[in-house]
Amino acid sequence: MKIVRVIGTATATAKLTGLTGQKLMIVDVQDAKGKVLIPACVAVDSVGAGRGDLCLMVEGSAARMASDGLPIDAALIAILDQVSV
Amino acid sequence: MKIVRVIGTATATAKLTGLTGQKLMIVDVQDAKGKVLIPACVAVDSVGAGRGDLCLMVEGSAARMASDGLPIDAALIAILDQVSV
Amino acid sequence: MKIVRVIGTATATAKLTGLTGQKLMIVDVQDAKGKVLIPACVAVDSVGAGRGDLCLMVEGSAARMASDGLPIDAALIAILDQVSV
Amino acid sequence: MKIVRVIGTATATAKLTGLTGQKLMIVDVQDAKGKVLIPACVAVDSVGAGRGDLCLMVEGSAARMASDGLPIDAALIAILDQVSV
Amino acid sequence: MKIVRVIGTATATAKLTGLTGQKLMIVDVQDAKGKVLIPACVAVDSVGAGRGDLCLMVEGSAARMASDGLPIDAALIAILDQVSV
Repeated sequence: MKIVRVIGTATATAKLTGLTGQKLMIVDVQDAKGKVLIPACVAVDSVGAGRGDLCLMVEGSAARMASDGLPIDAALIAILDQVSV
Repeated sequence: MKIVRVIGTATATAKLTGLTGQKLMIVDVQDAKGKVLIPACVAVDSVGAGRGDLCLMVEGSAARMASDGLPIDAALIAILDQVSV
Repeated sequence: MKIVRVIGTATATAKLTGLTGQKLMIVDVQDAKGKVLIPACVAVDSVGAGRGDLCLMVEGSAARMASDGLPIDAALIAILDQVSV
Repeated sequence: MKIVRVIGTATATAKLTGLTGQKLMIVDVQDAKGKVLIPACVAVDSVGAGRGDLCLMVEGSAARMASDGLPIDAALIAILDQVSV
Repeated sequence: MKIVRVIGTATATAKLTGLTGQKLMIVDVQDAKGKVLIPACVAVDSVGAGRGDLCLMVEGSAARMASDGLPIDAALIAILDQVSV
């Protein structure tokens, strides 16, 4: 999984019907000290995350499991309280 | 998922039969401000996207779900109205 | 999917039995203008491609679908006639 | 798989219920000589690893197999005694 | 798939039971001329490869197929006799 910071949101009118009602979060993949490694991925929120939150993002087929079968490849599965290195 | 801009199309005569009638879109993966991160991926369109549209691209096995089982690894699943960061 | 140029072939005597009779194509991942992005991937040919052809490569589990279940992670699924950007 | 060094841990209160009780390890992907290739991935521990251990990390759907079906994409599946190159 | 050179081996005492008896090979991903693209991946050997051999590595869920269901994400599926570009 990746450590990500939520930096914004995206909205879409034309989309697959399965995406209706899902929150699309713009996230930066970060290292443990906050340096951005990969900017601006999009993940579906599964845990009530908001802008500025540090989260755990899962990718690939596990994102479907985390979202009850949506056709997505990235989901937020935890809000991180602490990262200690 | 990735934020992508549709920059063109590709055509093919010799192809797997499952691809017949599918639109092959050339897209650039971008960050939230339009900087190109990965150029020239190819995705199947599931939402009626056209050249110049900002879209959401899903990769991996989720692309098959988004396209009713095509043997593909990338599909456009939304046209983005707004990306706010 | 990725735009790739076929640059050669590979041969192997010791291999999984499922690979017998399959053509192993060496390909460069390119952008829409022919710049090499990732050199020397290996893909199984599903469409009769030859050296010099511009093709569409699918990766991951979709490559198995495109090849009737071979244990592979990359397959050529179309010969591109035109890429217009 | 990847050679990784465990450099820390992460904790989360808000998370998918499946993650309850799982140890979230922060790891650096390394080469055989200890040079960091990709910093700060997060993997679930399946083998009792601790901070400082050199481990083998599996990614993608195999991580679910290694963890009895958790919705994760990275797991530690071995503690490496020796890497000889 | 990727062209890889076997550069060493790894051993582990603490590991998932499914890995018992499997050879863990350290490999460098190379281009067709031997330039290292990605150092020090770890793959399970399915074809009797040894140090110095040029091999074909499959990644992702196909690695499980190549290894009768092991929870791994990379396997060697052929020893390459010749790469001609």
